[in-house]
Amino acid sequence: MQKVPYKIYLEEKEIPKVWYNIRADMPNPHDPFINPGTLKPIKLDDFLPVFCKELAEQELDDTHQYIEIPDEIYEYYKTYRPSPLVRAYNLEKELKTPAKIYYKFEGNNTSGSHKLNSAAAQVYYAKKQGLTKLTTETGAGQWGTALAMACAYFKMDLTVYMVKVSYEQKPFRKAVIQTYGADVVPSPSETTEIGRKILSENPGTGGSLGCAISEAMEAALKSNNCRYVLGSVLNHVLMHQSVIGLETKAAFEKIDAYPDIIIGCAGGGSNAGGLMSPFIKDKFDKKHNPYLILVEPASCPSLTRGRYTYDFCDTGRITPLAKMYTVGNGYIPSPNHAGGLRFHGMSPILSKLYHDRVIDEARAEEQTNVFEAATLFAKCETILPAPESSHAIKVAIDEAIKCRESGESKTILFGLSGTGYFDMLAYTQFMDKTMTDYIPTDADLEKGFATIPKFPGLE
Amino acid sequence: MQKVPYKIYLEEKEIPKVWYNIRADMPNPHDPFINPGTLKPIKLDDFLPVFCKELAEQELDDTHQYIEIPDEIYEYYKTYRPSPLVRAYNLEKELKTPAKIYYKFEGNNTSGSHKLNSAAAQVYYAKKQGLTKLTTETGAGQWGTALAMACAYFKMDLTVYMVKVSYEQKPFRKAVIQTYGADVVPSPSETTEIGRKILSENPGTGGSLGCAISEAMEAALKSNNCRYVLGSVLNHVLMHQSVIGLETKAAFEKIDAYPDIIIGCAGGGSNAGGLMSPFIKDKFDKKHNPYLILVEPASCPSLTRGRYTYDFCDTGRITPLAKMYTVGNGYIPSPNHAGGLRFHGMSPILSKLYHDRVIDEARAEEQTNVFEAATLFAKCETILPAPESSHAIKVAIDEAIKCRESGESKTILFGLSGTGYFDMLAYTQFMDKTMTDYIPTDADLEKGFATIPKFPGLE
Repeated sequence: MQKVPYKIYLEEKEIPKVWYNIRADMPNPHDPFINPGTLKPIKLDDFLPVFCKELAEQELDDTHQYIEIPDEIYEYYKTYRPSPLVRAYNLEKELKTPAKIYYKFEGNNTSGSHKLNSAAAQVYYAKKQGLTKLTTETGAGQWGTALAMACAYFKMDLTVYMVKVSYEQKPFRKAVIQTYGADVVPSPSETTEIGRKILSENPGTGGSLGCAISEAMEAALKSNNCRYVLGSVLNHVLMHQSVIGLETKAAFEKIDAYPDIIIGCAGGGSNAGGLMSPFIKDKFDKKHNPYLILVEPASCPSLTRGRYTYDFCDTGRITPLAKMYTVGNGYIPSPNHAGGLRFHGMSPILSKLYHDRVIDEARAEEQTNVFEAATLFAKCETILPAPESSHAIKVAIDEAIKCRESGESKTILFGLSGTGYFDMLAYTQFMDKTMTDYIPTDADLEKGFATIPKFPGLE
Repeated sequence: MQKVPYKIYLEEKEIPKVWYNIRADMPNPHDPFINPGTLKPIKLDDFLPVFCKELAEQELDDTHQYIEIPDEIYEYYKTYRPSPLVRAYNLEKELKTPAKIYYKFEGNNTSGSHKLNSAAAQVYYAKKQGLTKLTTETGAGQWGTALAMACAYFKMDLTVYMVKVSYEQKPFRKAVIQTYGADVVPSPSETTEIGRKILSENPGTGGSLGCAISEAMEAALKSNNCRYVLGSVLNHVLMHQSVIGLETKAAFEKIDAYPDIIIGCAGGGSNAGGLMSPFIKDKFDKKHNPYLILVEPASCPSLTRGRYTYDFCDTGRITPLAKMYTVGNGYIPSPNHAGGLRFHGMSPILSKLYHDRVIDEARAEEQTNVFEAATLFAKCETILPAPESSHAIKVAIDEAIKCRESGESKTILFGLSGTGYFDMLAYTQFMDKTMTDYIPTDADLEKGFATIPKFPGLE
């Protein structure tokens, strides 16, 4: 029998021509965004001052199963896609497991992650509408880098509000974003009203994604030619990321295999949602029933310890309300938390699918264990993984060890969403044993929950 | 007509099964290494205290045209090879050139460069011989990273002597090497006799590859179970790197094309030699006659301003003598020089081929121009290139602009040997306009030339 190659590459012409919009197939739709002023579901017009029109339409679209990828975006995809599905032979050998481990590797582009899949789409639609400038936030920096790359290609101006703790810990990540021509502002900053307010209330804060979102939105609202774009959480972002899962399914078809377990790390949910959604369609269609696991950091446990309720997506409370798992828009992860996955909420789509147990499980992992898994993976598989992605690696290893114990040769798939080349400070802390874990106490979480707004009739 | 895809990937089974040993085909062989004690050509026994046996044999082998790649190395190659040949459509469009630009991209592995091709081979042979430890030097850090990755995989101990200026400018590169389990020592160091001597003569020196080589060799000679390995310059390294050119030729065959111009950046010569040698075979066979250009930094101009003579490969003068283009073993590039390509000499094979004008041209480029080319390339082609590789980009752009002016649609190939993720300090200096150029004066070069040894009958 022909051994499966290490890397299963599709041909260029096999890059998916469409994105998959899982909302069209969900038997129980997720709850709509709510306008916090009217307490009514968000309509297209509510979005237009913030988002460009085509993205706003995509955000609200729960009817079209597939959306065609425009030629201009498809051309850009061709510069770095298809990404490989990799058989982790060396890791399997190291773990002495009968499991077959696969990972979809989205890190082989300069953004170092899957984020470019949605960045290219968002910049293209903004350009098409005649806009000249975008604003966004970035945490660990992958999204900011991806957007800067896409803006350089489509020739758009960009200002990136970078969570201050990342800005300081990752000067070289910032430099990459600048090399592609974007401005980078540490958040919270003095350049916005919300930034000044947050700074006066929390002097010395390292910032959070929630703060940076507020600042980027405020800046976008000031100009007619400018809109705000977001790298995760939103429905259209998850839809763009479905290219990951569609390619993965096509690659598995080539080798006549199908995963028993699918594992994705989840901060806002775009990577896990993109990887899983085409497989969830198979669940809806009762063709396959893979076991789905979302992995989050123990220090920001929205799925495993949060509440499923309406909350703002930002700390400044200027976004619509989203029904999601949340630890509260005012929750800021401990500064000892390395890497991304620091958003207080979770994609409304994934939240609903998890709430309905279509997604089977969520696990929270502590970062020292995650870096231990990352280091083992790097040594076996050669790739230095991002801390975010390493949450999925940790669980894949645990599941493979279970297979060793039970003797089962399950097929395990995880998303290797990115590389860790700009996370070496965290790797150094891990090696020096100065890295610590942080598990919020119930009292810590209560403080976060207290920032979830209470509106009559909404929960 | 079918448009050539952006990325031409071979299948896994098309990874070359052999390395190409150009010495077997050179009509005029390069001059042999000389033992500085006896002034006679080096014999196998001279090499054995320093190199493991199989590599020493390969170093002296000028008869076997092809050497089979052992299975264990081939398996490792499969984890990150084949590398793509990429058509630079976006760069062509930006330059409005009728030229067809291709690059062979060797940076899509965590070492960020082609260096892994030889690292895997060298570690395997050392392991096979029963050795337990290796020493080496690294400049910009790619070689040290590659070797650490291969040592982690084959389970060997490793000490890396890292040129001090890189050690200080690239703490995160150092951390990657450590993550894979290797020790890193800044060179010159107090841990070797030669290091102490160099430090006493040049207090505050930023070091050089020549110094680091001396230290790594001295450390290796102290132990029976330890050998020294080198990432460039040597004949066997160039041979391992022929996998680059062999894959490139196979990819061009797939699209029924052949390059008119081939451009490689050259420090010690392993990347350019690996890319070019299979094409040089076509020159020997009079099948094709591509125009070959080597590109080096203006601050370390061994080919364009150096002498073709016998010199030591290291500053401590403990290596054999090699006939090569050299600016003198005591030449240390100005500390303002960013990136690698800082070796004082050049591969004896490439030196001979250039001296005989089989390689048509060498050019020296100043670093601000190189970073300008790098930034343009990054914006068009999405990949952030290594400063080293950007020397080749600069010349590829110049040649493409000539084509625009002449209306010729030449096929231009260059080696994109690596990525610049750990070179952001240099990119920042370029953006801040604090980066300066350095062209050594004739007097500067004379100081280097004065360190070239004079032996009767040798030149």
